[in-house]
Amino acid sequence: MNQQNGYHVAVVGATGAVGQQMIQTLMNENFPIRKLTLLSSARSAGKKVNVNGQEITIQEAKPESFEGVEIALFSAGGSVTKELGPEAVKRGAIVVDNTSAFRMDADTPLVVPEVNETDLHHHNGIIANPNCSTIQMVVALEPIRQKYGLKKVIVSTYQAVSGAGAAAVEELMNQTKSIINDEGYEPKILPVKSDSNHYQIAFNAIPQIDKFQDNGYTFEEMKMINETKKIMHLPELQVSATCVRLPVAVGHSESVYFEIESDEVSANDIKALLKDAPGIVLQDDPENQIYPMPANCVGKNDVFVGRIRKDIDEDRGFHMWVVSDNLLKGAAWNSVQIAESLVKLGLVK
Amino acid sequence: MNQQNGYHVAVVGATGAVGQQMIQTLMNENFPIRKLTLLSSARSAGKKVNVNGQEITIQEAKPESFEGVEIALFSAGGSVTKELGPEAVKRGAIVVDNTSAFRMDADTPLVVPEVNETDLHHHNGIIANPNCSTIQMVVALEPIRQKYGLKKVIVSTYQAVSGAGAAAVEELMNQTKSIINDEGYEPKILPVKSDSNHYQIAFNAIPQIDKFQDNGYTFEEMKMINETKKIMHLPELQVSATCVRLPVAVGHSESVYFEIESDEVSANDIKALLKDAPGIVLQDDPENQIYPMPANCVGKNDVFVGRIRKDIDEDRGFHMWVVSDNLLKGAAWNSVQIAESLVKLGLVK
Repeated sequence: MNQQNGYHVAVVGATGAVGQQMIQTLMNENFPIRKLTLLSSARSAGKKVNVNGQEITIQEAKPESFEGVEIALFSAGGSVTKELGPEAVKRGAIVVDNTSAFRMDADTPLVVPEVNETDLHHHNGIIANPNCSTIQMVVALEPIRQKYGLKKVIVSTYQAVSGAGAAAVEELMNQTKSIINDEGYEPKILPVKSDSNHYQIAFNAIPQIDKFQDNGYTFEEMKMINETKKIMHLPELQVSATCVRLPVAVGHSESVYFEIESDEVSANDIKALLKDAPGIVLQDDPENQIYPMPANCVGKNDVFVGRIRKDIDEDRGFHMWVVSDNLLKGAAWNSVQIAESLVKLGLVK
Repeated sequence: MNQQNGYHVAVVGATGAVGQQMIQTLMNENFPIRKLTLLSSARSAGKKVNVNGQEITIQEAKPESFEGVEIALFSAGGSVTKELGPEAVKRGAIVVDNTSAFRMDADTPLVVPEVNETDLHHHNGIIANPNCSTIQMVVALEPIRQKYGLKKVIVSTYQAVSGAGAAAVEELMNQTKSIINDEGYEPKILPVKSDSNHYQIAFNAIPQIDKFQDNGYTFEEMKMINETKKIMHLPELQVSATCVRLPVAVGHSESVYFEIESDEVSANDIKALLKDAPGIVLQDDPENQIYPMPANCVGKNDVFVGRIRKDIDEDRGFHMWVVSDNLLKGAAWNSVQIAESLVKLGLVK
């Protein structure tokens, strides 16, 4: 640590679902903080937040808010990062951004510390935190790539509504209550608040997360595809994704098919590898019905992996089931982890 | 029709979730019935059911219950079919069985009328109705196989709890209510009633349907794999499956990746093909957020297909999203449809 009393850290989007988790995670991890600045839109400014017994007033995020800030964690939408991220950098801060604003920029490292921590060395002030569904998948795939090589990935996701924000969780809960009480409820948020149509999520599954691109894939699916290649440094990796929203509040699940580049690898070899891999908890004991489930992952930083088995026909093909708290490893925890790596690597001025 | 006043039809398991749907479907389809015999276990015998204004008393299913029965629809568990199916056949009935008891027997046709109706010609009295998750997938795949060939299928399912019976639906609803009211609820049915552990299904996803086999796959997954090959007459087809239970009451969804044997086929070619295929309703207009969802399929006989798109890397690879009412096309409707085919082909004595 190059600052005796810790760092001046700012959280931008402090009132959002992820922002709240970022503050909590900074505290849980005892991140070395000298001063904590909480920023938000003008609408939420003035609110007071209790952080470890200290009352902090949330301020409106402006360029000058970043004077003296050394580490700024952004999670307030891509437009906010595009506007204020460079302002924070200009004032000497290093930005860890949870939006998609800069993720695919060649100059911006896109980092999951278990996978590509050393990419942090080459940055222009902004570090991008990947998409939630991408993070948990690459944590599970990276040890496999390292030992056996990786050729192809086909993933189908089972994603929680909290990925669409706190209002989406509220919609799921209120809508569920209405349906159980035989009352009407008009969907207003999911699948995508800014899109034309909104659909029931309670007791349903919606095969749309984020808007559609011209190629028939959603932006969420293309994020998984493109970000995975960038984080793993595998531009030739074949990746396809189908992303689906479920009536689950917190915890993304993924059914992942992958093909390796080595022969004669068994499912037990993969299990043994992932058992000791960083950030992973192996939960794979079918005989005793042990496998990951979203209801069990909430509030935990780990990526849970189970149901590892060989494809019936393809000797180099395997299936696994990957679950993680999308607000923690998928967002707040990975961002704080990046901040910890930046400190460890001496990259915070 | 070879019987002027219709057939003597028996429904075995008349009080179950599928049995109830069978009776309803026979009525909706105006199936030619001279006499309707409703059978169940001793426990439910004596109950009265109103069928089209006529009160019918449910009787205990015994060998002699099948005297004079020409078509017997079974949906009362594999052990009941194993015991009473041959008794019904001995008395001259043709049995349409919704359990897995005889599905993989070489002498038993496993039939989805849109796919392999002519297999009905070669039977020993018992026709098997495939597993719900298999049926909707092969309806969507068969037109593709016919025109372009089919090499490989990888499916991840999103299955409704009604596949585990009426008690599982009750568990989902009561558990959801308890969680919303901050009350405790001990799971007793899902994922598999007869298995050791039971888990929360409300606001969760459980990657187990039916029990596990030694190879790490569940019986449900192996059913999808083996039944698909048998129904489509493709023993060499590569099929893998991951089956997951969702907090959805009715309507199975499937994320299906498939590889064809032809080059230069576009997603639009596949869409045009499925648009006019039997049993299929194409719902595929991403620009207007049109895609199938379980909440919209309930009570309909069709298989709904959407989100058809080419794989990013594999020219012969495609993805699609397939949804259907698991109690209708997945069970009751397919069984009644088989009975209709038997009549049409002159196979009912």
